[in-house]
Amino acid sequence: MSSMPTAIEKQVYKVIGKHVYANLDQIDSRYLSNMDALAKLVGEAAKIGKLHIIEMSAKKFSPMHGFDGGVSIIAILEESHIALHTWPESDYATVDIYTCGVDGDPDASLEYILAKLKPKSYKVFKADRGN
Amino acid sequence: MSSMPTAIEKQVYKVIGKHVYANLDQIDSRYLSNMDALAKLVGEAAKIGKLHIIEMSAKKFSPMHGFDGGVSIIAILEESHIALHTWPESDYATVDIYTCGVDGDPDASLEYILAKLKPKSYKVFKADRGN
Repeated sequence: MSSMPTAIEKQVYKVIGKHVYANLDQIDSRYLSNMDALAKLVGEAAKIGKLHIIEMSAKKFSPMHGFDGGVSIIAILEESHIALHTWPESDYATVDIYTCGVDGDPDASLEYILAKLKPKSYKVFKADRGN
Repeated sequence: MSSMPTAIEKQVYKVIGKHVYANLDQIDSRYLSNMDALAKLVGEAAKIGKLHIIEMSAKKFSPMHGFDGGVSIIAILEESHIALHTWPESDYATVDIYTCGVDGDPDASLEYILAKLKPKSYKVFKADRGN
């Protein structure tokens, strides 16, 4: 007499997690220290990517090496998060757009940010954050 | 007579950007929907990594597929950000720890989170976010 193994399986719902992030060199200098402009940009980029902001936090840092302070903008999304950081003393910025679900288009959000910040050079990376 | 090219160089300060992120399967279920416990965990992980939280945002989402809601915790750091998301219906979580500067130890922060969340399996990734 043989006994069959009992399979008790928990249903696992698939998480679709799309994370695009970029390092941007020599962006439009008008944005580097402009917290309000960067917060507005993140809001617009979210909309273009069909992403929904629940809460946005913005912080301007102290001046460094004689340059105006950098900025961090972080948005909690219904679909995960957007994070944008700038370093005026290095003429540098980075952006992360991380979305879950199938509806959001983080690539469109990133394209919008690139079009506005106009980096002279940049690198884009993609990560699968799903299960 | 020859003329030497004139080099007008703008000094660019080096940005050290360390980003570690992880996808965690089957974490300790007591954490999945527990916003307060996850916020506390992020606070402790920041401290262990010598990171300084400026502002922390926490959001608990609506129930999904009969499971209690997921949680997003986002901390703006003096050194960039930490983001933690959970999906109870998928027994899944992800974490991002992104630091600038040489002093922070994001690996130590991640190790602490892994030790607490105890995922049955996980993947860790590292990205250079410097210029």
